[in-house]
Amino acid sequence: MSRKASLSGFHEWLPAERLVEQHVLDTLRRTFELHGFAGIETRAVETLGQLLRKGEVDKEVYAVSRLAEDEEVAAGRRDPKDPADPKRLALHFDLTVPFARYVVENAGHLAFPFRRYQMQKVWRGERPQEGRAREFTQADIDVVGDGALSPRYDADVALVMAEALGALPIGDFLIRVNNRKLAEGFYRGIGLEDTAGVLRSIDKLEKVGPEEVARLLQEEVGASPEQAAQALTLADIRTSDTSFVERVRALGVTHELLEEGLTELADVVATLHRRAPGRAVADLSIARGLDYYTGTVYETVLVGHEQLGSICSGGRYDALASKGNRVFPGVGLSIGVTRLVMRMLSQQMAVASRSVPTAVYVALTADEDWSEAQDVAALLRERGIPAEVAVSAEKFGKQIKYADRRGIPFVWFMGRDDAGARVHEVKDIRSGEQHGADPADWTPPAEDLLPQVARAQD
Amino acid sequence: MSRKASLSGFHEWLPAERLVEQHVLDTLRRTFELHGFAGIETRAVETLGQLLRKGEVDKEVYAVSRLAEDEEVAAGRRDPKDPADPKRLALHFDLTVPFARYVVENAGHLAFPFRRYQMQKVWRGERPQEGRAREFTQADIDVVGDGALSPRYDADVALVMAEALGALPIGDFLIRVNNRKLAEGFYRGIGLEDTAGVLRSIDKLEKVGPEEVARLLQEEVGASPEQAAQALTLADIRTSDTSFVERVRALGVTHELLEEGLTELADVVATLHRRAPGRAVADLSIARGLDYYTGTVYETVLVGHEQLGSICSGGRYDALASKGNRVFPGVGLSIGVTRLVMRMLSQQMAVASRSVPTAVYVALTADEDWSEAQDVAALLRERGIPAEVAVSAEKFGKQIKYADRRGIPFVWFMGRDDAGARVHEVKDIRSGEQHGADPADWTPPAEDLLPQVARAQD
Repeated sequence: MSRKASLSGFHEWLPAERLVEQHVLDTLRRTFELHGFAGIETRAVETLGQLLRKGEVDKEVYAVSRLAEDEEVAAGRRDPKDPADPKRLALHFDLTVPFARYVVENAGHLAFPFRRYQMQKVWRGERPQEGRAREFTQADIDVVGDGALSPRYDADVALVMAEALGALPIGDFLIRVNNRKLAEGFYRGIGLEDTAGVLRSIDKLEKVGPEEVARLLQEEVGASPEQAAQALTLADIRTSDTSFVERVRALGVTHELLEEGLTELADVVATLHRRAPGRAVADLSIARGLDYYTGTVYETVLVGHEQLGSICSGGRYDALASKGNRVFPGVGLSIGVTRLVMRMLSQQMAVASRSVPTAVYVALTADEDWSEAQDVAALLRERGIPAEVAVSAEKFGKQIKYADRRGIPFVWFMGRDDAGARVHEVKDIRSGEQHGADPADWTPPAEDLLPQVARAQD
Repeated sequence: MSRKASLSGFHEWLPAERLVEQHVLDTLRRTFELHGFAGIETRAVETLGQLLRKGEVDKEVYAVSRLAEDEEVAAGRRDPKDPADPKRLALHFDLTVPFARYVVENAGHLAFPFRRYQMQKVWRGERPQEGRAREFTQADIDVVGDGALSPRYDADVALVMAEALGALPIGDFLIRVNNRKLAEGFYRGIGLEDTAGVLRSIDKLEKVGPEEVARLLQEEVGASPEQAAQALTLADIRTSDTSFVERVRALGVTHELLEEGLTELADVVATLHRRAPGRAVADLSIARGLDYYTGTVYETVLVGHEQLGSICSGGRYDALASKGNRVFPGVGLSIGVTRLVMRMLSQQMAVASRSVPTAVYVALTADEDWSEAQDVAALLRERGIPAEVAVSAEKFGKQIKYADRRGIPFVWFMGRDDAGARVHEVKDIRSGEQHGADPADWTPPAEDLLPQVARAQD
């Protein structure tokens, strides 16, 4: 992690670092599949029309064009494409927009509610900074319904993510849950109709503090000092159980949408409180900025690393996608895998026990033993023991040094006894212990079989 | 597979199809790791300078630019970039060029010989056609040395690929091996000095036939009819053991490079013949077109699907990468995963036993049982059984139908006995068989635990 990326914002891991990332991806996949989520991948490119249709004018997308075309343009043999041509191709900047398109295109082949996970790279041309890369991996789960989708899925997806994150060597985290209807109903109840504007200001609360947000609310949304104060009082409510309901009611604001939101959020929080105690809170400051959620919204902080921002966010869309008058509501969450792994590595939260899969290095005493050494390795691999074979005979010391330098824990020697018969010995090069072994049944201790990724000792 | 891609050349799989692809990737990864290959990923973009440095003027690369920049150019606020600016970014078109850069950049952090596998998407803007996509996944293995690399690795990597491909449900395949030195030495020995030109023509042999190649050799390389005939006679040699050596010698051509190539290829083929009989042949027609290999070259055909082209190709580079006067030779192979999976799906060579991971659907008799049903599912998941829970109480028939439609084999029912105590039953909805079960110890048959991908019955 001390290495500098050769292209700013595009990180590449060394093998031992990649093992940590791979462990994160494997663990997430395992949890998602245990909960019945099917894995899909979508293409890396979308049309610009598709990418920008959600109304988010996010200009930091990467456009893609065939170089041959660009050269024709430069040579004056072809007109340049309008940069905003909706048919132009660009790299996806998240997995939600591509997934929504996938659902519409394949609706006839999917069984709803459709539970899918998707772990892929996405690209954003933003200025690189800590925790923000230009190429990064996201791991998403969503449940999508055809026409309707039970509110129970709002708790379900959060529970799956709590389990998935809980299985990672990252320590404590907290899923903060809010509800758009609750917030919007409250704002309308106090007379603020530009609810999107209010949310945009509230979203800045952690960055700029309540006084600045109060100023923004007055300047940009036209709130009175009292309205701004009320909006901030709401944002100040955070409870681990459903007691937030009473605290909101105590503010004396009434609105139909507020009631709906209170009920929905209380249901989600009650379920999370019961089934994943300590993992989630109702936090009425969560706004999720520009995203077009319509109900539950989530953010997740890593305890002790709050300044990293959210590592797992999402929410519910009443219409994730639509096809004619068929509407597909959805709810889901997305883990910022790269952001998380960067922090895990820079803070040495987790380490790989070695940087190669190899558990056993089969040494060569004589060059002509290579094929027999391959037989030994093949027997080990049959039992799931990663093994590689030396390509030439070297002195023992040199072979041990080679294995040591690569982090391989065991070296296998093939020798001869006094009668000239083959004898096998295996050496643990960490302890120096060496003993006779049969290639057909020797196995290393379970913790040495594959590289282990574990939480580093504090 | 009958569905049409919404963007030509960019394929997306349905969940059941993705399971086949995932099975291929998992199987390859497992084999590569058992052989001590460490997994890495490189960024999707390279600079154009990096992509084009191998001398391959492959214009079908996708250039990448920030849309915000393009708009500034269109508005006349910024000069357009030279399409050939070496600092321009573009999507990688293979995994070899990025890997070579990675080795140079991280040489100080890697232990050589470095064994790595890499499975990622690559992009080429070519005209889409059968077996050729614009976005596709490659799975590469390479061994890279620092300064020198034993020729034994040429056989080693082919053996790993033979094992990896042999573990896939794809039937028979054949790795065809040749050697650049052998071919080049032979061409020089018969007086043809433009060996790259000869290779380019020979590379077309399968597509256009020997007569057309003879014509090309005369027209484009200036070969005499006799020289063309000799080159074609060489290309006609194919043996499963080292007998090709005698057949080449019988042609009476001598050249130092030819001798070197014959020795190298004989070593590789002898090892493959002994350790993976029936999986490989010496095939002196293999040219690998424009690629800058310097020794062994490989192509692999799927038996019965020869017209698909090579599914696994590669070779040796004396200088895969270099850094100052430090040279990194490498040898490796690359599987065209997407090409292979497209064929597996279109020919129904392999099928997934179901399209969702879920093995058990926990039904609800009463809405308020949801949390208890989650407890049942949690107990099942603890034993690795993927389970999901109904979100609302429905009639049995409807719940069975739901599970059936999604391909879930088992439905779990929570009922009450006459005394009001909880009773659990599980139904195999394929056979209709239903019996009492304890959520703490029931397990499905092994073949129903996870979706299985198997070779379809002929």
